[in-house]
Amino acid sequence: MPSTRQNYREDVAGRANVEDSPELDAYYNELEQLSAGALWTVANKIEPWEPKSESVPMIWRYNDLRDHVLRSVDLVTPEKAGRRVIYLENPGRKEVAAAVGWIYSGLQVMHPGECASAHRHSASALRFIMEGSGAYTIVDGHKMTLGRNDFVLTPNGTWHEHGVSEDGAPCIWQDGLDIPLVNCLEANFYEVHPDLSQATNYPVDDMTKAWGNPGLTPANSPLGGAWDKPYSPMFKYEWEPTYEALSRLADTSDGSPYDGIMMNYINPVTGGPVMPTTGASMQMLRPGEKTKAHRHTGSYLYQCSKGSGYSVINGKKFEWSERDIFCVPSWAWHEHANASDSEDACLFCFNDLPVMRALGLYREEAFGDNGGHQPLID
Amino acid sequence: MPSTRQNYREDVAGRANVEDSPELDAYYNELEQLSAGALWTVANKIEPWEPKSESVPMIWRYNDLRDHVLRSVDLVTPEKAGRRVIYLENPGRKEVAAAVGWIYSGLQVMHPGECASAHRHSASALRFIMEGSGAYTIVDGHKMTLGRNDFVLTPNGTWHEHGVSEDGAPCIWQDGLDIPLVNCLEANFYEVHPDLSQATNYPVDDMTKAWGNPGLTPANSPLGGAWDKPYSPMFKYEWEPTYEALSRLADTSDGSPYDGIMMNYINPVTGGPVMPTTGASMQMLRPGEKTKAHRHTGSYLYQCSKGSGYSVINGKKFEWSERDIFCVPSWAWHEHANASDSEDACLFCFNDLPVMRALGLYREEAFGDNGGHQPLID
Amino acid sequence: MPSTRQNYREDVAGRANVEDSPELDAYYNELEQLSAGALWTVANKIEPWEPKSESVPMIWRYNDLRDHVLRSVDLVTPEKAGRRVIYLENPGRKEVAAAVGWIYSGLQVMHPGECASAHRHSASALRFIMEGSGAYTIVDGHKMTLGRNDFVLTPNGTWHEHGVSEDGAPCIWQDGLDIPLVNCLEANFYEVHPDLSQATNYPVDDMTKAWGNPGLTPANSPLGGAWDKPYSPMFKYEWEPTYEALSRLADTSDGSPYDGIMMNYINPVTGGPVMPTTGASMQMLRPGEKTKAHRHTGSYLYQCSKGSGYSVINGKKFEWSERDIFCVPSWAWHEHANASDSEDACLFCFNDLPVMRALGLYREEAFGDNGGHQPLID
Amino acid sequence: MPSTRQNYREDVAGRANVEDSPELDAYYNELEQLSAGALWTVANKIEPWEPKSESVPMIWRYNDLRDHVLRSVDLVTPEKAGRRVIYLENPGRKEVAAAVGWIYSGLQVMHPGECASAHRHSASALRFIMEGSGAYTIVDGHKMTLGRNDFVLTPNGTWHEHGVSEDGAPCIWQDGLDIPLVNCLEANFYEVHPDLSQATNYPVDDMTKAWGNPGLTPANSPLGGAWDKPYSPMFKYEWEPTYEALSRLADTSDGSPYDGIMMNYINPVTGGPVMPTTGASMQMLRPGEKTKAHRHTGSYLYQCSKGSGYSVINGKKFEWSERDIFCVPSWAWHEHANASDSEDACLFCFNDLPVMRALGLYREEAFGDNGGHQPLID
Repeated sequence: MPSTRQNYREDVAGRANVEDSPELDAYYNELEQLSAGALWTVANKIEPWEPKSESVPMIWRYNDLRDHVLRSVDLVTPEKAGRRVIYLENPGRKEVAAAVGWIYSGLQVMHPGECASAHRHSASALRFIMEGSGAYTIVDGHKMTLGRNDFVLTPNGTWHEHGVSEDGAPCIWQDGLDIPLVNCLEANFYEVHPDLSQATNYPVDDMTKAWGNPGLTPANSPLGGAWDKPYSPMFKYEWEPTYEALSRLADTSDGSPYDGIMMNYINPVTGGPVMPTTGASMQMLRPGEKTKAHRHTGSYLYQCSKGSGYSVINGKKFEWSERDIFCVPSWAWHEHANASDSEDACLFCFNDLPVMRALGLYREEAFGDNGGHQPLID
Repeated sequence: MPSTRQNYREDVAGRANVEDSPELDAYYNELEQLSAGALWTVANKIEPWEPKSESVPMIWRYNDLRDHVLRSVDLVTPEKAGRRVIYLENPGRKEVAAAVGWIYSGLQVMHPGECASAHRHSASALRFIMEGSGAYTIVDGHKMTLGRNDFVLTPNGTWHEHGVSEDGAPCIWQDGLDIPLVNCLEANFYEVHPDLSQATNYPVDDMTKAWGNPGLTPANSPLGGAWDKPYSPMFKYEWEPTYEALSRLADTSDGSPYDGIMMNYINPVTGGPVMPTTGASMQMLRPGEKTKAHRHTGSYLYQCSKGSGYSVINGKKFEWSERDIFCVPSWAWHEHANASDSEDACLFCFNDLPVMRALGLYREEAFGDNGGHQPLID
Repeated sequence: MPSTRQNYREDVAGRANVEDSPELDAYYNELEQLSAGALWTVANKIEPWEPKSESVPMIWRYNDLRDHVLRSVDLVTPEKAGRRVIYLENPGRKEVAAAVGWIYSGLQVMHPGECASAHRHSASALRFIMEGSGAYTIVDGHKMTLGRNDFVLTPNGTWHEHGVSEDGAPCIWQDGLDIPLVNCLEANFYEVHPDLSQATNYPVDDMTKAWGNPGLTPANSPLGGAWDKPYSPMFKYEWEPTYEALSRLADTSDGSPYDGIMMNYINPVTGGPVMPTTGASMQMLRPGEKTKAHRHTGSYLYQCSKGSGYSVINGKKFEWSERDIFCVPSWAWHEHANASDSEDACLFCFNDLPVMRALGLYREEAFGDNGGHQPLID
Repeated sequence: MPSTRQNYREDVAGRANVEDSPELDAYYNELEQLSAGALWTVANKIEPWEPKSESVPMIWRYNDLRDHVLRSVDLVTPEKAGRRVIYLENPGRKEVAAAVGWIYSGLQVMHPGECASAHRHSASALRFIMEGSGAYTIVDGHKMTLGRNDFVLTPNGTWHEHGVSEDGAPCIWQDGLDIPLVNCLEANFYEVHPDLSQATNYPVDDMTKAWGNPGLTPANSPLGGAWDKPYSPMFKYEWEPTYEALSRLADTSDGSPYDGIMMNYINPVTGGPVMPTTGASMQMLRPGEKTKAHRHTGSYLYQCSKGSGYSVINGKKFEWSERDIFCVPSWAWHEHANASDSEDACLFCFNDLPVMRALGLYREEAFGDNGGHQPLID
């Protein structure tokens, strides 16, 4: 029977280039019996010249998904489903249920008066509110009210639950988690709250009121003691001050040639990312702005939170408008453009940049040719 | 001639307690010739049981000082005086021109259209605006407009200059510097700007617009590259968002028993103090609030920026109202009270707390007796 | 055609438990068209109660592998093979060529006078010398001579090459790399050195001579400037001082109940791990010592560098002697025993513990029953 | 009565230059009544162009001091004196009992069988052993045996006591403390141990055996938990490995043009200084080596621990041989020379460099003229 063994050869000095032979084939078989292999057969595969993402550049249009999300309310009960969420499945990442790279994302719906049961896990999560009113999240006893374009954290290990108040309107939000990453690192734990819901022990929105102030920190933590958790104590980041901050920054900065006016959400205690595995940002493309292309390691998932435009990703154009979600895989060229000459456009993004940085794996490159813009591929 | 040499004796086990004798006196004289001494004669002096500050608790009332400050404009020209400043001189710290401990402070006045020449020094400085309009400060080319109760940094090594615009009103502000500390550490350098004034190269208020946003940081520094200076890039901290932050914190926290609702001004890049040697805070005493007494290492200088009340410092009561400045020496008991039952009162404070912390010398103690309140000393 | 779609149900409050139905099946098909899915069908799969490693506890015995490693010299040339390495392939991780988790390891052989070409990559590597003499490694121009049980780094992004001097004896060493991790994070880059070999610009062993001193650091970096790379400048860790250190520690400490006398190799500049993604340690089991069982997140690969004994991993006993290599997958129970009552035994280990810690994913648990020892599974 | 008030004038643009006048004098008197002053009268004094140390460059020759130190044993009892120490008194720093800047130093003597009582204080201390045998120090229950040129820490807040064993020989060592600094910062606390001596709870020399290993750290602290104190857990730094480290570094580095082959003693947990306020180093001047001159902020106290030579400090030559102690004040030019063409010479040094660095006040300058060597002043 002929061997189905692969042999990755390259005719380049310093790379493996060993011909198959009967003798070697026998040798390989012996190694296989010992749970071993010859490196030169796989070296070129496992040491690629540069990253080639398994993820496919993708856009999920809200128009396509919204009805399906809403229908899930009729199809399954919260008790049976746990949460009614439609998750985004990148064609190249079906096996790990990822939207891009090691990032999970889904659209969750909840009706007024509903409340999902409390749990906690090693995965870190965030939510970004897309529509509706009356949404709230409780994290370790801290209740946060949530409006459109607000962004809330439920970090690794915190008890959390979501709901919509009786007097609210049906809510849809985007969930973002590092579930695939934590699974692949074989470090995911899950617990259901013993009472299925937690008490709220603090004033509403206390963490954002205490920690979300410009250039100021509570001299005495409202919780007592110094904040020493690895994630931000400012659990909620509201849209209004975020948009205002972008506008202020636009007054004073030309921004980035690749990203326009862009701000990172941070842990105010350290100045670092909001959670150890997950970064998040909001960027503004000014009227008529067309950024230049670059690429970097790390996987990015965007949601258009205001306006409309398009992005070119690895030479392919993706048009987006409010609430559309699209991804940029690791090391993919990308550039963004605002379609309007009069209105700004805003993109929310979350990513695994903190992982890249913590592990010393961040790398970035500008697209040099063609004035910095990718030629479009038909 | 009888020796004038001191001998600090204590009759406590483990402490020095050596009687003078002619033989020892001769021995001490020999040591003196060798630029040496016997430790046991000074050990109890240089190893005190606890700190005993050379500074005297003090209040400087604005009513007393304001006229003198304004008169300086008529008495000296900016060209001759450099800056027209009346500095606060603690009776125990005259030799080093300090208001308390190793902290210098003065009241500076400037008329519309005036501008002081640019310089830089190893001392770190801040200003807190007391009255007037049209004030501005330029730090390394960044111009900041300044209003009442605004607080601005001119850190170690930065070129800086102050002025009041033509259409402004006479301004008085409090200067705060670590000049005595940097002098005592024999590390102070001074330079006059070669042009006596610097160009302003950036949009007005750019540093606060870029860095002074809640839970957000510019993804790309408006200045290019990461901010790696040891001080805050947010040079100006405005009163309005500060007061709002205190109000928000008051909604969610009982505050500190010793300080009420208190926030520290921070370097948003690190979450640490605004400058390596100088901390600053703003605190709110709610209507009727009377804090308990505590003491800690480090020297503190307060300015009442809103309302009125009193502080008890080492058993002595100091009543203050808006613009009054008072000091709390290291390890002095102190407690604060708001005199009003309907209005809040606010205290701005700057201090050398970051020095205490960086050098491992911070210590704090609550006043245990009498319900936490000091008995008054007549 | 019946759907092959999986549906992961659990009959536990707070977990997904939705029955299939024709209506839902149609709905799922629609979602699939939109590159989306219903979370409740996969939630229980992607949010497991605890980690279940894909890796199998394994031992690779040196007796089994050594001949095959040596034979590779006759079978392939260095020019064709790049490096003659037999890699360890965990039955559960064949697809990513990993020995355990996301860790690659192989046994490399080189004959006197041979030298592999220089390259660099984003993966971080280490070598642990198993036998032979005259081995050396060059890292960014720094040449290091290597003896038995020495451990050397070739960090992320450094040019490196290996060789054996003309007067040496055939060498075998263990390579350890984070290649699978860096690949899975889609961040691996590879370059062949333009000259296929690099100049050695520094005195032999300079980095270890300069940085490998107890409680001492060069006041002036021999390389000029402060060391600011994210990995250790002490490229080589020699066996003799390491064994001596273990002996000294054994004099003063009872060690860990789970690991005996154990020391981590560190970056002397920070006190942290030798490379951002890879930790390494050497531990001594004293004569007769049998540790208790515990488990933790992170994948570990051990090599017995002295003596003999056994480890129990998830209830299965693995006997090891010098040069045997075995793995402990994430969250697997494990305990170690020294088989000798008179000699100590030493285990070298490298792991992805720094990844677990940097991302906030480290968790540890002691085996509580049975006096801390796992019952053996037949 | 004519005013004794000083007025520091300089005829330089940007500096204060205000003539005295009767009107101003009256104004100054009024300010004085208000505990205030006019900045322009003192500005040039408190904002100097560069530091001008109050300390005088000095040498204390061991030949001169040794007999006096030994005599103290006959003159005072340990019970009465606490410790028998002759301290070094810089002529410019008598008021604060400092050897240089804010650094205290003394020579302590102890006879076999003697033991000083235990105490603790906020000042941080070190000892450097000059002669004798059998010396030991106990720090928080850890006993350390001490030999010639060994260096031991007794950090801020630790209980400590010193003694000489019955079978030892009379010992003299140098004490170094930051007492003047901690006093000037008004943060010094002192406690006598309730039992006047402490139990030794750990194996002798355990902290150095556990933490003093090259590139290795205990995986499990012998004390349990992570080491989180702000000072080094490696309490003792022995001479032999230190000298060996210098020799190894000399093999691989040209060293510093200003300091020859120099190593800093470090906290192995952080790579930083041994204590937050105090740095220490050992440097080797190779046979015939003459360094170039530079100056920097911070105060330095040297002890020749091997060989002989001279230093030129602010143009004055100081010849030293073994056990001599000399100081370099802040911002003083200095260069060192080994007098021997065949033997190396070693200088131990401790300093307040960590204070300068922590507060952002470190500055350094090379002496540019005359080939980098100061002209001698007669």
